[in-house]
Amino acid sequence: MEPQTALLTDWYQLTMMSSYYELGMEDTAVFEFGFRRLPSERNFLIACGLEQVLDYLEHVHFTESEIEWLAATQRFSNAVLDRLRKFRFTGQVYAMPEGTLCFADEPLLRVTASLPEAQFVESRLVNLLHYQTLIASKAARCRLAAGSKALGDFGMRRAHGAEAAVYAARAAYIAGFDSTSNVEAARQFGIPLSGTMGHSFIEAHISEIDALRAFVRTQVVDVTLLVDTYDIQGGTERVVQLARESTNSPIKIAAVRIDSGNLGEEAHKVRRILDRGGCADINVFVSGGIDEYQIAALLRSGAPIDAFGVGTPLTTSSDVAALDCAYKLQQYAGLPRKKNSLWKSTWPGRRQVHRGYGDDGRIAMDVVSCADEVVEGKQLLSPVMQNGQRSFHSPPLAQVRHHCHEEIVTLPIALCSLDSGPRSPVKISHGLHQLVGELDAVKH
Amino acid sequence: MEPQTALLTDWYQLTMMSSYYELGMEDTAVFEFGFRRLPSERNFLIACGLEQVLDYLEHVHFTESEIEWLAATQRFSNAVLDRLRKFRFTGQVYAMPEGTLCFADEPLLRVTASLPEAQFVESRLVNLLHYQTLIASKAARCRLAAGSKALGDFGMRRAHGAEAAVYAARAAYIAGFDSTSNVEAARQFGIPLSGTMGHSFIEAHISEIDALRAFVRTQVVDVTLLVDTYDIQGGTERVVQLARESTNSPIKIAAVRIDSGNLGEEAHKVRRILDRGGCADINVFVSGGIDEYQIAALLRSGAPIDAFGVGTPLTTSSDVAALDCAYKLQQYAGLPRKKNSLWKSTWPGRRQVHRGYGDDGRIAMDVVSCADEVVEGKQLLSPVMQNGQRSFHSPPLAQVRHHCHEEIVTLPIALCSLDSGPRSPVKISHGLHQLVGELDAVKH
Repeated sequence: MEPQTALLTDWYQLTMMSSYYELGMEDTAVFEFGFRRLPSERNFLIACGLEQVLDYLEHVHFTESEIEWLAATQRFSNAVLDRLRKFRFTGQVYAMPEGTLCFADEPLLRVTASLPEAQFVESRLVNLLHYQTLIASKAARCRLAAGSKALGDFGMRRAHGAEAAVYAARAAYIAGFDSTSNVEAARQFGIPLSGTMGHSFIEAHISEIDALRAFVRTQVVDVTLLVDTYDIQGGTERVVQLARESTNSPIKIAAVRIDSGNLGEEAHKVRRILDRGGCADINVFVSGGIDEYQIAALLRSGAPIDAFGVGTPLTTSSDVAALDCAYKLQQYAGLPRKKNSLWKSTWPGRRQVHRGYGDDGRIAMDVVSCADEVVEGKQLLSPVMQNGQRSFHSPPLAQVRHHCHEEIVTLPIALCSLDSGPRSPVKISHGLHQLVGELDAVKH
Repeated sequence: MEPQTALLTDWYQLTMMSSYYELGMEDTAVFEFGFRRLPSERNFLIACGLEQVLDYLEHVHFTESEIEWLAATQRFSNAVLDRLRKFRFTGQVYAMPEGTLCFADEPLLRVTASLPEAQFVESRLVNLLHYQTLIASKAARCRLAAGSKALGDFGMRRAHGAEAAVYAARAAYIAGFDSTSNVEAARQFGIPLSGTMGHSFIEAHISEIDALRAFVRTQVVDVTLLVDTYDIQGGTERVVQLARESTNSPIKIAAVRIDSGNLGEEAHKVRRILDRGGCADINVFVSGGIDEYQIAALLRSGAPIDAFGVGTPLTTSSDVAALDCAYKLQQYAGLPRKKNSLWKSTWPGRRQVHRGYGDDGRIAMDVVSCADEVVEGKQLLSPVMQNGQRSFHSPPLAQVRHHCHEEIVTLPIALCSLDSGPRSPVKISHGLHQLVGELDAVKH
């Protein structure tokens, strides 16, 4: 699959686009992407995925063979197929920078383009922004729980496919993880790599001590040794033995890894064995289905853990596998639009988010307003694309990560908890309330 | 990213492989992939993803630029880099065909190759098999709940990335879905497409009736019209009006779609309005965060629904975002191996699954045995790859789907429920128990 293939979309985007072309409905449309409600497990979100969205918008097109395939469906006129052949995204985009703290009811991104263009890009745009924001938000919770302890992304294998694995590593790094085990993500984004050893390495040797010794001898930097293949106490004692044997070795044993059992209890036992054996400088690394709740509980209980490998719960956001988000038509041909069903009504028109801070430097209030309304506070949406070309070039990933760190520092104290916090700090402006009142008076 | 890049792996696969090369540990290893425990929300699994695994194993390699990147990490000797440059998978694979019903504790796939090769492919192989099996299993539950009603995959946008979206459509189709909205999946796999229209199409028009009329007029096959943008009753009345206007139109209104509200109540209201308006032939299609539990509840309550669009809960398997699976070393250099920690012990050696059926044609018992043990029943693992080349060519997807249908018919009645069923039908053979006893007597 071509990474920017226009066929990575929902079928109705193509059938609606066909109708728009046939009807000549190509006036300017404004769509906005945002999250509607947050589940009780999330007090905030970290905006993420903009870089991939801009890349998509710059390059999305139909190849000639894709056009032929579409023609064979007999669902499109030749005139429409010709339009698709020339299709490019030529619109404008405003967005929050990646790593920005945000909340439900806020637009993270606004697309302004001809109706067919702005509508068509919905499916992939949502696909990219939803997943990375989901994972960055989960990762930020892990970081809140872990304090200054090291966090590594170990979730490649059960991430939902290749792209998920790579983008999860990126999103987690932005939100405060220190490293990833995902080699492709490291290559693409320059994320530091981390890794230990697998149980199979131990099992392939006749004895555990042989396996540990062989690994140390054949690696070229400091290693983390797995101690739970047979029994954790015995494994740790073998590591102590090995550390004594190899005091002159250039390769140090940096840590031991516990991947099973009651991690808190085992960490205490392992720490004791290491300390008594004169290995106070060897760290304790734990993994095995860990999430932010377990990290918090382990550290609260005083477990002597230095680093966490977080896998499946991170890359699948397992407690909340998806968030309620939407890409909504806000305005068409100069008129604001809104959905008005009893169940899902929306805030219409072009919008902006204004953030106000308290004396403590933390967020006091976000105001969502009409884009041209005068409201105090820092504007969160700024132009990133003009006429289909980027006007914003993403800073290096380490800088995005730093921005995210500075954002999380501004999170209201009450929302820093892993438990469900009070209401979000988002208010709707007077102007936006007024606009809704006017639109609700209109009959359809 | 190259789809078959060898860098799509965990870092420790490369560091372990380097040690294996340095140590000359290249005897034959046997690894098996399977699921360890099923959560209470899953009584069975549908094996899926083999096709992509075989494709990966046939093509995985390091490009020269990847080798250069690895060299720059300064973690590998030149001798190891030379081995990576020539790396190809040249082993044997046994597997269950896609669409096969399976359970916890059963191997779905067995790899036999030199230790570095067999170990290295773990991460991507798990990544491919886990996700598609997860989704096929979720989809099969939707099919059990939906009976003969139509099921469409609408989950592209919130699937975890592009690959997840495409493979979810494939897995769902195998497990009994009728169609997908994912155009790229339709193109790659020939899955029937389905789609309706979005709320934005309605909102972009001045009135709802104008929008519906314009859509019908510009489409070339039967359409499904969305009725919940403003109010469902009014929307449905407009559809009735439109159906009367267009009795001579070649394009028929096949269905109306309800995407919000209390779907059961609304379906009754909509059905009544359609029937009274002489539109008994227009179907009712529902969507909006539906999963198998809601499908079952809606149909149990007698809601007059003809078709379901299942989105996010399907493609993210939202109630169970990941399953507990592993790719385990079973044998190395002719000796069976097992992990033996208190928490995760495994069944060693090369294994086979034998399925026995009752008089009703349903599964009576699965026996997991040593591969060379004589046990009655149909053997589920068969050879699919020899010397790194496929010896098995997947049948067309419709045939895989048919196989899956025939498999689900053999599911023990007690496991057909969406609720947690009794114990699985899996037994461990006498030979395998004996082997474990022998290995547990060995000291490490």
